[in-house]
Amino acid sequence: MGETMTETSGLEAPSAEKVLKVALLGGGTVGSQVARILLEDADALAARAGARLVLTGIAVRNVDAPRDVELPRELYTTDAEKLVSGADLVIELMGGIEPARTHILAALKNGASVVTGNKALLAQDGAALFDAASANNADLNFEAAVAGAIPIIRPIRESLSGDRITRVLGIVNGTTNFILDAMDTTGAQFADVLAEAQRLGYAEADPTADVEGLDAAAKAAILASLAFHTRVSLEDVRCEGITKVTADDIAAAQDAGMTIKLLAIAELITAGDSADGTAAEGVSVRVHPTLLPRKHPLAAVHGAFNAVFVEADNAGSLMFYGAGAGGAPTASAIMGDVVSTARRIAAGAPGAPGAATRALPILGLDAVTTSYSIGLEVADQPGVLSRVAAVFAEHGVSIETMRQTVDGAPGLAAADRWSAGGRAELRFVTHPASEAALAATVADIKNLDVVESVTSVLRVEGV
Amino acid sequence: MGETMTETSGLEAPSAEKVLKVALLGGGTVGSQVARILLEDADALAARAGARLVLTGIAVRNVDAPRDVELPRELYTTDAEKLVSGADLVIELMGGIEPARTHILAALKNGASVVTGNKALLAQDGAALFDAASANNADLNFEAAVAGAIPIIRPIRESLSGDRITRVLGIVNGTTNFILDAMDTTGAQFADVLAEAQRLGYAEADPTADVEGLDAAAKAAILASLAFHTRVSLEDVRCEGITKVTADDIAAAQDAGMTIKLLAIAELITAGDSADGTAAEGVSVRVHPTLLPRKHPLAAVHGAFNAVFVEADNAGSLMFYGAGAGGAPTASAIMGDVVSTARRIAAGAPGAPGAATRALPILGLDAVTTSYSIGLEVADQPGVLSRVAAVFAEHGVSIETMRQTVDGAPGLAAADRWSAGGRAELRFVTHPASEAALAATVADIKNLDVVESVTSVLRVEGV
Repeated sequence: MGETMTETSGLEAPSAEKVLKVALLGGGTVGSQVARILLEDADALAARAGARLVLTGIAVRNVDAPRDVELPRELYTTDAEKLVSGADLVIELMGGIEPARTHILAALKNGASVVTGNKALLAQDGAALFDAASANNADLNFEAAVAGAIPIIRPIRESLSGDRITRVLGIVNGTTNFILDAMDTTGAQFADVLAEAQRLGYAEADPTADVEGLDAAAKAAILASLAFHTRVSLEDVRCEGITKVTADDIAAAQDAGMTIKLLAIAELITAGDSADGTAAEGVSVRVHPTLLPRKHPLAAVHGAFNAVFVEADNAGSLMFYGAGAGGAPTASAIMGDVVSTARRIAAGAPGAPGAATRALPILGLDAVTTSYSIGLEVADQPGVLSRVAAVFAEHGVSIETMRQTVDGAPGLAAADRWSAGGRAELRFVTHPASEAALAATVADIKNLDVVESVTSVLRVEGV
Repeated sequence: MGETMTETSGLEAPSAEKVLKVALLGGGTVGSQVARILLEDADALAARAGARLVLTGIAVRNVDAPRDVELPRELYTTDAEKLVSGADLVIELMGGIEPARTHILAALKNGASVVTGNKALLAQDGAALFDAASANNADLNFEAAVAGAIPIIRPIRESLSGDRITRVLGIVNGTTNFILDAMDTTGAQFADVLAEAQRLGYAEADPTADVEGLDAAAKAAILASLAFHTRVSLEDVRCEGITKVTADDIAAAQDAGMTIKLLAIAELITAGDSADGTAAEGVSVRVHPTLLPRKHPLAAVHGAFNAVFVEADNAGSLMFYGAGAGGAPTASAIMGDVVSTARRIAAGAPGAPGAATRALPILGLDAVTTSYSIGLEVADQPGVLSRVAAVFAEHGVSIETMRQTVDGAPGLAAADRWSAGGRAELRFVTHPASEAALAATVADIKNLDVVESVTSVLRVEGV
């Protein structure tokens, strides 16, 4: 390996003979791609980083397992600990909490910098990792942890570091976006589309982490931490998946000129008096299916693509769009971090500071007001709308729009439908209301004798 | 000023007492916003940068001119040279070539870092500025120079530094996008929409730099330099504006499911044999009105918004979207650079290296093949299509689609139209062809006696 690595040829001769030892933990899809790029593009990377990146080994569970990408056999090792101990830069692509955490902490304590795409670990234990990085003057970079190849971590940490981010809305899970987009296009039910997504490889055999929003919640915690310079962990994120979204919900959204997306939403909320400087700021982070107007830029994100929409005081609205997963895109994000980190190390500069400069409170959902779309199945008889509307009014929830769809045979006269015990569907969209007010409203509406069922309650953004 | 600047309060107390002297050159719209942010957000910025940013002065031409933003009178000075000589960090927002260049070079020679949004200077003299920065271990950052607040420079320089960018397509001029979008929506002619844009403040009284594509060309040169790690200056960019785009062109594009955008296009082109490592790479950079399918993400960029679409080997397709101009968005980009640069200085780290690690040749248009849309006004008589098609064939330009629109009173029989000397319009879209083959084809078509005129020649991307 050494021979090909130290040769320099072509236009991209390295400007320095500095060498950085790079340890790779994990030899799966992304790891194989990263190793391939480190070997194949060694000269170009050396020129850009100002140091030669020498891959010293790839830690795997089984050295003899078959691999997608053919790499020199002698690179593989099962001794991750030893590999880490000699490294200047550790790339962690094992995933999961342990042993990834132990290896990352060991690397940072050695003063080695770490590049990782491990969103679960960052969302659960980010604070400990950042503290270890700061204490040891090392870098901890993780562009690949959110939205694959889309540069979003670095823009938030650096490009927007002179602005005040107030809100982040992200489509950060490709599987759920693929499913919702397919439901929107075909009118099919969730279960059927999920089965098709599994068949096509867009959803895993056990799709829980994706469809219940847990993957998106981990990414939401990471985005919120960076956007608001505070610490947010997975348990701070209120999370609701897409398993209850029905074809009827999608159809009703279409009727209203909207679409349904699973959004990761992080908001900076200001309460109190800002005039005397005592304004209390807090953070709300949540993941849930959300109605979005079709004209919103996020509504145009189709298939398994990801996008993150950022609102900042001065920058206004920004959107970052691209492939959110896959071996090559994720490898691109990892390698961007590797080169940037290597540049920093090669220049002899101290590590970048941790992200948290504030300690904002995590606010409950009562601090958040959003518009809601509520679907009801009601008895199709006179006076129902007025009784339902009265409940909204009691709880101070203001109705923005209402649509009624009547069940039953087309052309049947209204009087016949009533006598036949027909059903009607009512769809309300409210003005912004608190979660508490909304929950109380829905509970009371359920108790009305004319209401058969509450068929859906969905939040609305971007109106 | 000193009193409020050194007070620390609230959650964002600075972690260090380091102080960086910041000199601001230019007190216009963006400069005023930047000064306001530096003063108002001093504590938050200090926490994020790891150093207190003290604004030592604002160099302007006339100290007594009226300003949008009220700032302490004593900050203003006409002595830019003196202001620069004492600064750790210089923010250049004067615009134009001189005296901006002199001040930037003086700052860099002092070892001060520079943040600028001066696209004209960077596109014309970027190489000299980067050399000065490298030689003096200083930073030169310029996120605001391209696409306002949209983080695109840093993602290309850092996030994608481990990938191979092959193409950049950018809507990087808000004025022309506003005009083309309005033409698309209203069906109006260029001149009428331009007048309306001038009335609304989206176009300047002298719109030449925007509508002729010169502003976009400067940004294209900067993007190409960074994307391909080479040096591209304004004179390397082939540039064509939007003044010749007609309502008919827009209507024909709509008929074909397309829209017209002014795109800055930078491409990495590989010629020769890559198997033996001798593949010759080169760069092509151009700005011109371009037909884009409506399903392309850039087609959904409306009004004065900007977006940059990047294609890379591993990351795939990425898009960055947001406000491309305006005081506050541009100030956000400037401040992101200021905080990132200050962080680097505060940490005692050496400056970032210059962008160019390669010296790729700039290729002429013959190295580029694109599809073209060609509109012809022809005599409405039998045999015309066959004669025109023969000319395409002679030059090896393959036709993908053809549409014919016949002039004259609706319902008039074809035979009557012929005898009345009617006209027909033909619209061809070709398969990818070289500029030379296309130019030769168009020249010969013009000479056909049945061809009245060539009404438009537009390039097509994204098909």
